[in-house]
Amino acid sequence: QSQVNLYGNVDLSVGSFKEPGQKATTKVESGSLRASYIGFKGTEDLGGGLKAFFKLESDIAADTGTASSTFWARTSAIGLAGDFGTATLGNVRSLAYLTNTAFNPFADSAVFSASNLFGQVGAVNANANSGTNYKNSITYTSPNLSGFTGAVQFGASETNGVDGAVALQGTYTAGPLAAGLVYEDVALTANTDSQRWQLAASYDFGIAKAFAQYGQGETDGQAETEKFFQIGASAPVTAAGTVLASYGQLKNDGVANAKTTEFSLAYDHAISKRTGAYVGVNNTKIKGSKSANTFAVGVRHAF
Amino acid sequence: QSQVNLYGNVDLSVGSFKEPGQKATTKVESGSLRASYIGFKGTEDLGGGLKAFFKLESDIAADTGTASSTFWARTSAIGLAGDFGTATLGNVRSLAYLTNTAFNPFADSAVFSASNLFGQVGAVNANANSGTNYKNSITYTSPNLSGFTGAVQFGASETNGVDGAVALQGTYTAGPLAAGLVYEDVALTANTDSQRWQLAASYDFGIAKAFAQYGQGETDGQAETEKFFQIGASAPVTAAGTVLASYGQLKNDGVANAKTTEFSLAYDHAISKRTGAYVGVNNTKIKGSKSANTFAVGVRHAF
Amino acid sequence: QSQVNLYGNVDLSVGSFKEPGQKATTKVESGSLRASYIGFKGTEDLGGGLKAFFKLESDIAADTGTASSTFWARTSAIGLAGDFGTATLGNVRSLAYLTNTAFNPFADSAVFSASNLFGQVGAVNANANSGTNYKNSITYTSPNLSGFTGAVQFGASETNGVDGAVALQGTYTAGPLAAGLVYEDVALTANTDSQRWQLAASYDFGIAKAFAQYGQGETDGQAETEKFFQIGASAPVTAAGTVLASYGQLKNDGVANAKTTEFSLAYDHAISKRTGAYVGVNNTKIKGSKSANTFAVGVRHAF
Repeated sequence: QSQVNLYGNVDLSVGSFKEPGQKATTKVESGSLRASYIGFKGTEDLGGGLKAFFKLESDIAADTGTASSTFWARTSAIGLAGDFGTATLGNVRSLAYLTNTAFNPFADSAVFSASNLFGQVGAVNANANSGTNYKNSITYTSPNLSGFTGAVQFGASETNGVDGAVALQGTYTAGPLAAGLVYEDVALTANTDSQRWQLAASYDFGIAKAFAQYGQGETDGQAETEKFFQIGASAPVTAAGTVLASYGQLKNDGVANAKTTEFSLAYDHAISKRTGAYVGVNNTKIKGSKSANTFAVGVRHAF
Repeated sequence: QSQVNLYGNVDLSVGSFKEPGQKATTKVESGSLRASYIGFKGTEDLGGGLKAFFKLESDIAADTGTASSTFWARTSAIGLAGDFGTATLGNVRSLAYLTNTAFNPFADSAVFSASNLFGQVGAVNANANSGTNYKNSITYTSPNLSGFTGAVQFGASETNGVDGAVALQGTYTAGPLAAGLVYEDVALTANTDSQRWQLAASYDFGIAKAFAQYGQGETDGQAETEKFFQIGASAPVTAAGTVLASYGQLKNDGVANAKTTEFSLAYDHAISKRTGAYVGVNNTKIKGSKSANTFAVGVRHAF
Repeated sequence: QSQVNLYGNVDLSVGSFKEPGQKATTKVESGSLRASYIGFKGTEDLGGGLKAFFKLESDIAADTGTASSTFWARTSAIGLAGDFGTATLGNVRSLAYLTNTAFNPFADSAVFSASNLFGQVGAVNANANSGTNYKNSITYTSPNLSGFTGAVQFGASETNGVDGAVALQGTYTAGPLAAGLVYEDVALTANTDSQRWQLAASYDFGIAKAFAQYGQGETDGQAETEKFFQIGASAPVTAAGTVLASYGQLKNDGVANAKTTEFSLAYDHAISKRTGAYVGVNNTKIKGSKSANTFAVGVRHAF
């Protein structure tokens, strides 16, 4: 019948995992460097430059075999792509999440990515949107216009009187430079919205690729302003080996001493294009408690 | 190894959805014209005209990424097919559901198919059977005998003292004509059964295909008789475009004013054999409250 | 993209199922002879004799369409295989389970395998391990050394102060002979461990293959010792037909009259390499109550 592409990733590690203020625990964990998931997708050429596609993706906690409670929480979408750009309908990664992970050397790593700190800023609209995804959403992404790509995303709240979530994203790439700006406004209740924005950039110097991101988040009626930044780098040290480093911080201006700092350092060795092994350390410090170190050594396999 | 066929459908729409007596809500919905699901099936030729097959299908609420709570609720079955007909074991669509959706131009559409009204008639045997499926079931379908096909289905209640569910179905096709008759008796408790039957037909006039169905449902010990009818048509208006229309009604004779009427009108445009776009409106009226209009525009992609 | 292998099994039967002391119930059941499941796996050749692989498997109650509550409970793992042996990380079958099912002619049959009795011996570490699987685990299996294979498995409890689970397994094969020995120690709480071991063997006489297994299980602080044995045989009676027979017993030395005995007899007819039909009977007797007979006739199809 049709051509369905089956793909995904399994990443499992063993290590000593520690949260600030808690004891270290020996664990086998999933997704320490890259999320574990399985996906099904397909594309159909409709002629005239038009393409239809679908995508279904399911996260996996491969250490225990647990799927996420919403099975296709990672992605369930249909779309049309053409000269006009791409329009997608369904449950997809939020633009804020995409920018947040694209400009961090550790991307969506559960253990090493300081971007996780900012991903959780702001409560979420329970009916429609989580920190990572816009459910019930429409997304339009423009074609690449001289390096510039714009996107707009709307997630319906599906609750009368409560606005949905809206996001705007701009991305610019030119040779070694990439930059992104994203803004979103998520309605939490009829009268309360949460806003966040992020400005981020990366530059590939050849010897190393540098990353930097800065973002802020606020919620209506709260004095707090959450401020996030991250600077990082990935450096190819051998033909197959890459060193990754990142330093990030989330600070809440409206709450005394609310500051979390993360530093991560890892070595990722590509055994093949799809398979790799890594070792890394993450230091997380919450102001007022002792900092915690997590060590993990793992294997990742994309399929 | 073996040949497993991966297939399914994603249908997502955006629109204004309204239930009678409630406010209209802007939503992104899954399955408005055709159910969204993913399936895995395979067939093995055993020689001598005999074939073994399996089928696993899972419904998807693609707007949010939610799988049905019973993951393979749509189908999980094994079967043998040969000159003698087809015998299937497991969790399959009920014969009543198949007739109910086969003779409606909107088939299993969640929004536009008035057949949904009758699909919910009668409580269901919680242990074995839902309105759409017979779990723990055996189904035998005869070969095509001069246009006639008969089927019998038994769903075990798996509860001592409670009978299972039994259904009989006859289907006749001759050129442009198709007709179906189905009867089922579902045991709800030791002493209470629910019965329903449906007579339905379709005729393809070329310029349009007409559909008509009539059914009744009763439950032991209740004075109520639920009566359902639907008439509809699908008309190819261009090479790729089809207009679909349907009017249906469910009336409960034993309950004063219990009458629900639905009218649907839609235009479905086939961009390719597998992909299409549609726009439609459904008007639902429950006697005693104002009628409600639902509008939806969507995209569907079979894979 | 990559080569993902999609595989699994569907086994459905109809029969009269009875537990000792309860009434017989007519049921359609899944996995009566072989477990029903679906799997996804892939292997990548990394060169130099090294291979990476992943495996995701999900059990299916195909009679009702129900997936296990932990979706990938059957297996979710990544591994590396080479001259050194195989190392696997994630959620995998326990070594004790593998030996327990390998030396029973009915293997993992839900209805006919007396090994189910011993599989449930000992409470399990809720955080890490069930009777069939080690979650959060590392397994090392040696290469085949003159017929001998050794394996060691560790499942992390992921709870401070509670040890994990550890298992050691040895397997020996030489021509028609196979033998296995497995020992495991599963920490249930900080101060309570459960231990079990099993010694098992099979010998293929050509006319029939004989199986025997003996195991014991104990839990710290309890006077009870659970003792299990099973003897069985599988005999090819025609080119396609096999008769399977097994007698097993679980006795609890520390509890008066705690003895369960099972006898199973079945005929399995291979219609093809992947598809078969079977009929069987299981007699289960719990000391003090009447014995119960379960009859089932079913079809199985591997894909």
